[in-house]
Amino acid sequence: MPDSFQNVTFVGDGAMATVLALLLESRGLNVTVWGPTAENVAEVIQTRENRRYLPGHRLPDSIRLTASDSSCFRNADLIVSAIPTQYVRSVWERLAPHLPEGESVPVVSVAKGIEKGTILRPTQIIGDVIEKVSRGQGAEGTSESADSSSQAPKPPSPQVPSLASLSGPSVADELAKCLPATVAAASEDTEFAARLQTTFTTQWFRVYTNPDLVGVELAGALKNVIALAAGILDGLQAGNNAKSALLSRGLAEITRLGVAMGATPETFFGLTGVGDLATTCFSPTGRNRTAGELLGKGKKLDQILEDIPGVVEGVPTTKAVVDLAQKHNVEMPITQAVNQVLFENLDPLDAISNLMSREPKTERVG
Amino acid sequence: MPDSFQNVTFVGDGAMATVLALLLESRGLNVTVWGPTAENVAEVIQTRENRRYLPGHRLPDSIRLTASDSSCFRNADLIVSAIPTQYVRSVWERLAPHLPEGESVPVVSVAKGIEKGTILRPTQIIGDVIEKVSRGQGAEGTSESADSSSQAPKPPSPQVPSLASLSGPSVADELAKCLPATVAAASEDTEFAARLQTTFTTQWFRVYTNPDLVGVELAGALKNVIALAAGILDGLQAGNNAKSALLSRGLAEITRLGVAMGATPETFFGLTGVGDLATTCFSPTGRNRTAGELLGKGKKLDQILEDIPGVVEGVPTTKAVVDLAQKHNVEMPITQAVNQVLFENLDPLDAISNLMSREPKTERVG
Repeated sequence: MPDSFQNVTFVGDGAMATVLALLLESRGLNVTVWGPTAENVAEVIQTRENRRYLPGHRLPDSIRLTASDSSCFRNADLIVSAIPTQYVRSVWERLAPHLPEGESVPVVSVAKGIEKGTILRPTQIIGDVIEKVSRGQGAEGTSESADSSSQAPKPPSPQVPSLASLSGPSVADELAKCLPATVAAASEDTEFAARLQTTFTTQWFRVYTNPDLVGVELAGALKNVIALAAGILDGLQAGNNAKSALLSRGLAEITRLGVAMGATPETFFGLTGVGDLATTCFSPTGRNRTAGELLGKGKKLDQILEDIPGVVEGVPTTKAVVDLAQKHNVEMPITQAVNQVLFENLDPLDAISNLMSREPKTERVG
Repeated sequence: MPDSFQNVTFVGDGAMATVLALLLESRGLNVTVWGPTAENVAEVIQTRENRRYLPGHRLPDSIRLTASDSSCFRNADLIVSAIPTQYVRSVWERLAPHLPEGESVPVVSVAKGIEKGTILRPTQIIGDVIEKVSRGQGAEGTSESADSSSQAPKPPSPQVPSLASLSGPSVADELAKCLPATVAAASEDTEFAARLQTTFTTQWFRVYTNPDLVGVELAGALKNVIALAAGILDGLQAGNNAKSALLSRGLAEITRLGVAMGATPETFFGLTGVGDLATTCFSPTGRNRTAGELLGKGKKLDQILEDIPGVVEGVPTTKAVVDLAQKHNVEMPITQAVNQVLFENLDPLDAISNLMSREPKTERVG
C-alpha cells in the first residue's frame, strides 16, 4: 500500500469539506480548512461548529481553520477542492498565485458539475487556472528579475499538478454520522489515486480507485440533471416505477454522452455512476432532487433557488450538458426536457408526457 | 406495428395478474383470469374485487374469472403466466394437459425468480413442463390408439410455444393507479416480443422489446436477492450512501453471473436490470426489501415469512443463485452474505461489516 498524505488543505468550508476534514483528522492527519469568507471562518473558529453547512458536529481544535489566501497551502502535500462547480474558477484564480512555488501539490476535487459556457469539468477548470496563473507568474517573474537582476533566480512557478476526483454516493450528513459509504478516487495518475485510497479509507469509508477521471467527473455532474427530473416526477407523484424507468433511461443517455467524450462505459455502471445516481434520485434530502420536486409541484425556479440553502449544481449544469450533447451529437431527451422545464417554461407534466409518448422501440443502452 | 393479441388467459390471480388483466380489458381485449383456488375465485366473482391481492379496484364484468382447469384456455391466443416462481412448476403441471391440442399458444411470464433445486428460470420451467406433458400425452395417445384403433388419429399434442418475459420496474399498486411505467417484453422470438409490445402498450404503460430473454429473466430474479440486502441495510439504518453502494456493487455481481450464463450485459444496465433493481431497493412497499428490513431489525426469517402476505421471491431464489454462482464459478459476495443471514444465522451487522472490510481495490464491473 502506498503512503498516506499527511498535510491536507481543504479549499472550501461547505458540508463536504467539513465532513472529509473530520474524517482525515480522525486518522491523525494535519488538516487545514480554508473558507472564502473571513466572517464565516471566524464564526466556525469561535464555535468549533459549521452551523451553516454541517450543524451538530464539533470540529476538534486540531483542525486549523483559515481565511488566509497566502498561508492556507502552508506545508500542504494534498489539496482537496470542495467548491461548487460554478465557483471553482473564481476561487482558484484567487488562490492559485499562493500555491507553493516550484512544487506541484496534487489536487483532488469533490465537485459534481460542468462549468457553464466553457463546458469544462471541475479538474479541467483547476488545471486551466493553475496553468494560466503559472504562465502569468512566469511573465511576472521575468519582469521582476529585470527590475532587480541582483536577486536570486525565482524558483519555477507551480506546474499543473496531478488531478483527481473523489466521487460516489456520499450524502454529507450520512458521512458525518460515520455511516458506511463507498466512493471512487479517480485519476489518470494511478499512483495518486492509490495514495488517495490509503489516505481516505477508514472502517466505514471504503475507497476504490478508478483510472477513468473523465467518466467519474462526467457521471457525477450528469446525474444531477437526472436527479432534477426524478424530483419532478416526485412532485407530480408519478411513483417509483416511473422514477426507476427514468433512472435507467437517464443512465443510458448520460452513458451515451460519456462514451462520446471518451469515458469508459463501465464507470457509469459503477459506484460513481448508477450508485450516485440512485442516491441522488431517491435520497429525500438531496438538493437537486428537492429542487426538481418543487418544480414538479409548480413552484418557479427563481423562488426555489432562493429557498434551498447552498448551490443546486444540476441547474447550471443542465445548460452545460445541453451544450455538450449538441457538441458531441448525442441524443439526450431527458436532459432536453429538464432544460425546457428549467429555462423555457415547459410545464413539467407536459415534459413527462412527451417523454412517455415517444415511439416505443427496442431497448438500447449506451 | 404487428397485431395485438385478442384473447388472453392469465394463469394466476395475484396482484400482477389482476392489474395487467385490468390494463388489457381497458384496451378492449377478451380477458380470462384463472385462479388456483376455487374459493378465492368465487369471492372475486361475487365482489368483483380482488380483496386479497389488489384491494380497492373494481373488476369489470367483462373480465371472466374461472377456477376451471379444463376451460381456462378456451380461445386463448396469449397466455400470461403470473405465478410465483416456486409454484410455476406445480401450476403448469396441473394446467398443461388442458392446453389446446395441436396449437401452440405463446406464453409470457411475469415471475421474477429462480426455481430451487433445478436452478431454472420461469420460462424454462414452463417450457420444461409443457414438453414433458406433451411427450407424456404422446405416449398416452399411443396406448389409447392401441386400445381403440378405430378412433380418428389424436391431434398432435401441444408443442413448446414461444416464450417471453414481461419485466421491469412495475410495482403493482402503482400500475393499478395507472401511474406511468415502462417495462420490457423479452423473447428470443422477436416477432412475439413485438406483438406483446403492441398488446400491452397504453398511454401510461410503455413497452420496449428486448431479445435477451435470459438476461431479462435473470436480472428480474437476481435483483430480489440484492433487494433483501438493501432491506437489511434499511433495518440497520445504514443510510442511502450504503444502500446505493450496495446497489452498484450488487449490479456488478448479478451482471457477472448473467454474462457467465449467456446474457447480454446491456440488459443489466437497462430497465429490467438497474431500473427494476432501483425500484426494488428503494420502494418502501416491496416484499423483498421489507423482508430484508425486518431481518436487519433482528426478526427471525420464519416469523417474517409468516407476517408478510404473499411470496417473498428473493428468499428461495437466494439459495438457487448461490447454486448458480457455484456452477458458473462467479464471485458473488453480496448474495453469499444474504444467504448466510437467511439460512446460516449470520448476524446482519456482521454480514455488512464483512462486506465493508474486504480488501480495497480497483473498481471493476461485470
